[in-house]
Amino acid sequence: MQDGPLTLRRRDLLSLIGAVAGSAAMYQAMTALGFAAESRYRGPIRLEGDPRGISVLVLGAGLAGMTAALELRKAGYSVQILEFNDRAGGRNWSLRGGDSFVELGGFKQTCDFADGLYLNPGPWRIPYHHRALLDYCKRLNVALEPFIQLNHNAYLHASRAFGGMPQRIRAVKADFQGEISELLAKATSQGKLDETLSKQDQEILLQALRSWGALDGDYRYSAGLISSGYRGYAKPPGGGLAAVPLPSNPVGLSDILNSGLWRYLRNFAEYNFQTTMFQPVGGMDMIGKAFAKEVGDLIHYNAKVTEILQDDRGVTVTYSDAKNSKSTLQASADWCVCTIPLSILSQLKINVGAAKKAAIDAVPYAGAVKIGLQFKRRFWEEDDAIYGGISYTDLPIRQIGYPNSGYNRTGRAVLLGAYLFDGANAYEFTAMPPDERVAGAVEFGAAIHPQYRREFENGIAVAWHRVPFTLGCSGDWTHEARAQHYDNLCRIDGRIVLAGEHASALPAWQEGAILSSLDAITRLHERVMKT
Amino acid sequence: MQDGPLTLRRRDLLSLIGAVAGSAAMYQAMTALGFAAESRYRGPIRLEGDPRGISVLVLGAGLAGMTAALELRKAGYSVQILEFNDRAGGRNWSLRGGDSFVELGGFKQTCDFADGLYLNPGPWRIPYHHRALLDYCKRLNVALEPFIQLNHNAYLHASRAFGGMPQRIRAVKADFQGEISELLAKATSQGKLDETLSKQDQEILLQALRSWGALDGDYRYSAGLISSGYRGYAKPPGGGLAAVPLPSNPVGLSDILNSGLWRYLRNFAEYNFQTTMFQPVGGMDMIGKAFAKEVGDLIHYNAKVTEILQDDRGVTVTYSDAKNSKSTLQASADWCVCTIPLSILSQLKINVGAAKKAAIDAVPYAGAVKIGLQFKRRFWEEDDAIYGGISYTDLPIRQIGYPNSGYNRTGRAVLLGAYLFDGANAYEFTAMPPDERVAGAVEFGAAIHPQYRREFENGIAVAWHRVPFTLGCSGDWTHEARAQHYDNLCRIDGRIVLAGEHASALPAWQEGAILSSLDAITRLHERVMKT
Repeated sequence: MQDGPLTLRRRDLLSLIGAVAGSAAMYQAMTALGFAAESRYRGPIRLEGDPRGISVLVLGAGLAGMTAALELRKAGYSVQILEFNDRAGGRNWSLRGGDSFVELGGFKQTCDFADGLYLNPGPWRIPYHHRALLDYCKRLNVALEPFIQLNHNAYLHASRAFGGMPQRIRAVKADFQGEISELLAKATSQGKLDETLSKQDQEILLQALRSWGALDGDYRYSAGLISSGYRGYAKPPGGGLAAVPLPSNPVGLSDILNSGLWRYLRNFAEYNFQTTMFQPVGGMDMIGKAFAKEVGDLIHYNAKVTEILQDDRGVTVTYSDAKNSKSTLQASADWCVCTIPLSILSQLKINVGAAKKAAIDAVPYAGAVKIGLQFKRRFWEEDDAIYGGISYTDLPIRQIGYPNSGYNRTGRAVLLGAYLFDGANAYEFTAMPPDERVAGAVEFGAAIHPQYRREFENGIAVAWHRVPFTLGCSGDWTHEARAQHYDNLCRIDGRIVLAGEHASALPAWQEGAILSSLDAITRLHERVMKT
Repeated sequence: MQDGPLTLRRRDLLSLIGAVAGSAAMYQAMTALGFAAESRYRGPIRLEGDPRGISVLVLGAGLAGMTAALELRKAGYSVQILEFNDRAGGRNWSLRGGDSFVELGGFKQTCDFADGLYLNPGPWRIPYHHRALLDYCKRLNVALEPFIQLNHNAYLHASRAFGGMPQRIRAVKADFQGEISELLAKATSQGKLDETLSKQDQEILLQALRSWGALDGDYRYSAGLISSGYRGYAKPPGGGLAAVPLPSNPVGLSDILNSGLWRYLRNFAEYNFQTTMFQPVGGMDMIGKAFAKEVGDLIHYNAKVTEILQDDRGVTVTYSDAKNSKSTLQASADWCVCTIPLSILSQLKINVGAAKKAAIDAVPYAGAVKIGLQFKRRFWEEDDAIYGGISYTDLPIRQIGYPNSGYNRTGRAVLLGAYLFDGANAYEFTAMPPDERVAGAVEFGAAIHPQYRREFENGIAVAWHRVPFTLGCSGDWTHEARAQHYDNLCRIDGRIVLAGEHASALPAWQEGAILSSLDAITRLHERVMKT
């Protein structure tokens, strides 16, 4: 046997690792080799064979339902969709001036936003790694623009810290990083890491901490131009005479720790919220509309499903016209892809096995509230130099999301004035009439932007627990429920398969809905081809 | 005297601090109070009085020159501009298909980019805190879109680390943060911070390190779903059956330290590169063009200045037609705003005082090289899920900048294939003929993106030391030169004042050019109004 260097192509190496050590090791080796295969999505689905004459009834024209309909029709199936709303998209939804909707309890809101402005009450951002959704956007010509998750100049706000004054994210981030770097540099210099790191690594660590933590020549995070080069200046560099910058003063570590503002920093680092994120140009519902352009001819709108019955020959669904509840209609097909949210489905009559029924009943729905506020001008840009992104607060509104489009323009704009999820705050706002929710968002928001009081024009508030077509914003799985019920929820039961974000490991994300749908129809198609 | 609570408006408090403790303390208090005043720019300049009949000759139609011309004419001055190029904008420049230019040494390049594609060979990004530039963009209707500086999914690459395989920024960032968090958590738990932090603060610090560093329940940064939630998964969560994610394996701290990849992390944190950054929609030169729409009627193009002479009555500038070097023309005015780069100005005859002349001669110019490459498709998006942002490498090309527009589209695209600045690499590439520079960028880039070899179509390379109108990309001040010469450079000398990025504390930034210009014309106007 020769003893020369072994030359392997990366793919061969990975196959070898897969064969020897199993798929987990192979996937991990792929990551380590920088091999870009970190998605579940393997490109457009291929459903091979000839299912002509076989029919599928899809329940729900959200992204899961429309994905199923689009791909099943393309594969040769005869498809129809029943949809509760008078529009496609489901939670993929944008509200614009003139739109109105009625929530559970009877409150009707009409949106008064000016032309071109909108609120995405449901999903509002798309991570770069949501490959299936991005591929559908490409195939369906949905234009994308960046969604700013981290804006260094937006605010972090704790009601009982810093005299209630909001702090710039850049300052909190730089000070926290700088001060823990100083602590670790000190421990290193004092020999306290000698058991953990070699002397040589300690020396590099000191350089790294200095570079990354903005430490000075003595490895201290101190007031001066070095730290100001990260956290911002009291007076930044200028032009001409008197251009010299003035440094700002870092906040002490103890103040940051006790303020709790460090809690928000993870929102800028987590995989789900990393750059580059996207939003569709013009509103999230551009995606739903693009799907509807493809499959709109298959959709029966205003169809309120009341019963889903199957036998060994097919599925029959009873529904009424949502605008005329006394009507009783039926639709039948050989198979059914049901994307109805579990919050609704659990209340319908459906003859599935006990395990499936238990799974359908096992998932409570989260109750987010989103409130859009229109202002006379972009004061957050003009006065505060905040362009897009999110400010976080411990006030009930939790977040203020600035518009990620139309930057630097004059005139009116809409921001997300509150994004409450779970917990007492969301319930409390859900219980209020919509106008009180809007007034509350303005009142709380004014603690961060006093300009609210002068510039506010109108608002709209979507409390997802009161939205008739979902009764909640997304499936709220516990670990225990998932362990016990998830597979049962996803398995094909007779002639029925479920899909939607609730049938995914990506709850609340549109990618979860699409991947779930692709998985469901792949298995359904296999079953059909076998029978 | 009453002893009740003192109620002060913030502005009053700041005035008080300013009066008692001086302006530095006041500015620092402003920052601490979250008061948004962190810019030199105070809104549109107001030059009051009536200078009608008084003339100003502006040299150079870059941003500094055109700002001066726009504002001086508005104030009532009679203004003309001499510009060396046959276009306005100067270093505010974009290259598109059909454009050509000749560099020093005679090499002529013609750009072959497809319609709608461009390279910004000069400035390419605008920080949110460049308030003057942003205000001119607003006033001149220049549409902006985000420039992605940090893309977590772009690469960091060290030739001699990780077998030469590029690493995802997200993985390096998460692993570095996680591992230093683990080190500091360990030191804390072992009582090694007892002298520095109270026990209560130590407890909060542990929580903060766990949250921010993605530590597990034992305060360790370990392979698992927690760290994968930051660094990315080997196999991410999916939909339907078999949706469970597989964790990825962190890289050890010693490997990261020795790779040197930590050096790049500061590029995502520094004040100058923080979110939200911008670029003009359609190319950086949209700004220059918008200025030229305002002041284009004042510009004499192709005017190569050879001599600037002043006496106590005015300034006379001798120039030739750049397309006919034997011509000799003259322009005169009462005052002169000279924005000619010092690299050029130092070679011209100009009768200013010795201190000013010494200042003009004191500043060498940096020699950046930028190379634009057109590819058949956006393989970085399609294959690598990299949308915008920058990959960094220790190879001579230093950076690969992905286009921050047209995301997710099919068809051709242009990326920045090299951005070399200073040092041997830039000189080496500057010395090559343009086609070799392009070939070199393709060769080196293929180490990061092997797709280069199949997808490359054409390229263009701008070596700033060879660009006739600047002979370098920007003034490269040393601390010593600045201490000795900067004020002399900026002071009005007789009837001449200098402006441009070289006369600012923001070298190489367009904001420096504009702020410098506004400062120069403010002082010039004061002088005029006094005489």
